[in-house]
Amino acid sequence: MATPLTVSPLARPLPDLATVEGVRLSAVAAGIRYAGRTDLMLAEFVPGTIAAGVYTKNLCPGAPIDWCRQALKTPTARALLVNAGNANVFTGRAGRQTVEDCAEALAAHLSCPKDEIFLASTGVIGEVLPPERIINALPAAQQGLSADHWEQAARAIMTTDTFPKAARRDITIDGTPVRIQGIAKGSGMVAPDMATMLAYVMTDASLPQDVLQTLLSRFSQKSFNAITVDSDTSTSDMLMAFATQQAQHSKITDADAPALSEFRTALQEVLQELALLVVRDGEGATKQIRIDVTGATSDISAHKVALSVANSPLVKTAIAGEDANWGRVVMAVGKSGEPADRDTLAVGVGGVWIAKEGSVVPNYDETPVVAHMKGQEIDITVDLGLGSGSATVWTCDLTHGYIDINGSYRS
Amino acid sequence: MATPLTVSPLARPLPDLATVEGVRLSAVAAGIRYAGRTDLMLAEFVPGTIAAGVYTKNLCPGAPIDWCRQALKTPTARALLVNAGNANVFTGRAGRQTVEDCAEALAAHLSCPKDEIFLASTGVIGEVLPPERIINALPAAQQGLSADHWEQAARAIMTTDTFPKAARRDITIDGTPVRIQGIAKGSGMVAPDMATMLAYVMTDASLPQDVLQTLLSRFSQKSFNAITVDSDTSTSDMLMAFATQQAQHSKITDADAPALSEFRTALQEVLQELALLVVRDGEGATKQIRIDVTGATSDISAHKVALSVANSPLVKTAIAGEDANWGRVVMAVGKSGEPADRDTLAVGVGGVWIAKEGSVVPNYDETPVVAHMKGQEIDITVDLGLGSGSATVWTCDLTHGYIDINGSYRS
Repeated sequence: MATPLTVSPLARPLPDLATVEGVRLSAVAAGIRYAGRTDLMLAEFVPGTIAAGVYTKNLCPGAPIDWCRQALKTPTARALLVNAGNANVFTGRAGRQTVEDCAEALAAHLSCPKDEIFLASTGVIGEVLPPERIINALPAAQQGLSADHWEQAARAIMTTDTFPKAARRDITIDGTPVRIQGIAKGSGMVAPDMATMLAYVMTDASLPQDVLQTLLSRFSQKSFNAITVDSDTSTSDMLMAFATQQAQHSKITDADAPALSEFRTALQEVLQELALLVVRDGEGATKQIRIDVTGATSDISAHKVALSVANSPLVKTAIAGEDANWGRVVMAVGKSGEPADRDTLAVGVGGVWIAKEGSVVPNYDETPVVAHMKGQEIDITVDLGLGSGSATVWTCDLTHGYIDINGSYRS
Repeated sequence: MATPLTVSPLARPLPDLATVEGVRLSAVAAGIRYAGRTDLMLAEFVPGTIAAGVYTKNLCPGAPIDWCRQALKTPTARALLVNAGNANVFTGRAGRQTVEDCAEALAAHLSCPKDEIFLASTGVIGEVLPPERIINALPAAQQGLSADHWEQAARAIMTTDTFPKAARRDITIDGTPVRIQGIAKGSGMVAPDMATMLAYVMTDASLPQDVLQTLLSRFSQKSFNAITVDSDTSTSDMLMAFATQQAQHSKITDADAPALSEFRTALQEVLQELALLVVRDGEGATKQIRIDVTGATSDISAHKVALSVANSPLVKTAIAGEDANWGRVVMAVGKSGEPADRDTLAVGVGGVWIAKEGSVVPNYDETPVVAHMKGQEIDITVDLGLGSGSATVWTCDLTHGYIDINGSYRS
């Protein structure tokens, strides 16, 4: 049982949530691990809905990840079933059987092929997840389906999360109103690599699968793949998008079609907003940290330098202590292994350049930096002075809260 | 000023220290940063002493690192001067001038060329280190030189260390008695890459520079390069060996000479002992953790997998909480990016296999593992089941102590 957690000081209230045509959701208490809370989320899609997904690159993925990768070969989706409390990871043949049994049971309820069912599990690793509790809860889950149950759904997938996470954008495609709305969970074991903890975005747009997949993959790079809480890439990371095809706009065949201009921006914003909510609920987080790296030899190199800073325990503990310890930023840049030259390196905090060309700037006045460090949103800028590569990564500070949560999560 | 630190529960008493012919040491209080303690260590070597060294691979090294790399081109050494409290890193032209001034002053005292002076600084990054305090302290340092002042020397180079660190071996080369004795410091910002925090090994052996350098580089791989406290590779890492040529054994020309058999073993043991002392004084450490990886596709791959486990905040916090959370070990193996197959992976703790072939072993009895987790020395074994590559890495747990120390180190 997880220790009761106080709500993150960086929590954001849910946005004003609306319905997405073709999507109904429900949340029930299946008693998988937690007492007195919902832990099973069902999303049902209108027939003809197509899915796109990106999954963890961790080489020891959970059984549901394997299932989804396989199911995505048939891009139509009728349902998404997510449980919290048990990740069904490293559970061998029993884990594969659980996934198979749950998918079959839900497919029978919805009268659809089982490869139209997408599954996810999040929680403790290495314990067998018995299918019965989930299967027994399916009738109640089906009965509870409603187009309005977005908040309930966002809450049911939480583990060490301290607040539910959602984002919404209303835009148009060729003049036709279209909505994008998503939910996410994630707090620890967050260093997504090509995917995220769990995030689901639904839209009523009428898009072919390859267009949705292309845009999802593209925008995951600068959203979920640009955040880290603790450098630990989960075995269950999953980002999926579902398009119900209900909006009556012109036919789209190309991810870069001009008609999708608003859609692209909105999808990118929704993914970034959800990713930042995960950072803001990082285990023990008291500050959100943004790291901008410029002047790198390439964008990829800039991304690696930014991650090296974002994952440095010394940088993160200094920020927790409200100390603008830029020397640790220099250390983290240098240890990244990426091209860097001490004598062209500049480091700034809160918009103030502290160090340039290998040493502290003359007459450096710490006052505005000290004030910035007391805030909740900390900006670190690194200019490598070598080229035009750039990247931005978001993380949170490392505090006693992280130790509290993870020294006792399982027991 | 560093917060007063309680002594690590993993502290080891100093071994019975002896003299090394040709080496005299002293420690003085130069008032560089700390009050009421020594912070400047001088080691003087008999003329003809040769030096070998390996240095940080961090691309933003401190000015003393640059100096030593240059000075090592002339392998003879007359002195080593180390200050604590200020790392003289990212201090630009002023930092280079400080190094130059200190080396010149000490060379004048000892009537030797300045490239026979080796320098090191450890402490805060980014603050200018004024040379005057060091130069003014040199007469007292020279006057205090004694063949017996090893403990004083080990104490003078400490920063957040909570106990002094030394190791000693007495062996023979071709029947002639030879001694190897070393000191080290290090507690945080420890993830040495080809070197260490600060470690100095002295021997009276009569060895050519290339032999000493070859052996030092070789053994640093399985000692200092196999430890990590927090994944943060310092800008000041330095491991040096000094051979005073005083022992009257047969002439050695080859690092693999049979006559050096005992010497090689002893040097490797001294380096490993010093490296483990650094882990045992890891900031906030309450447990020493050993990670053995076998069955990898290569030794290099095994080393990367072991480091991925050793640097995982989730693994380290679980161990702090005495939780044998092997699922987090699986996650850390999978995120390393190295070849791994969930279905051939085995994980053991305290000599008990918990998981094999993709799931928990049948009838797994947690009792002996729970008992093991309550101890101070934790063993984790990972078998990848793919090849014959193996590696061992040592680390410590991640506790509230680490947050306390690093959230307030500078202020």
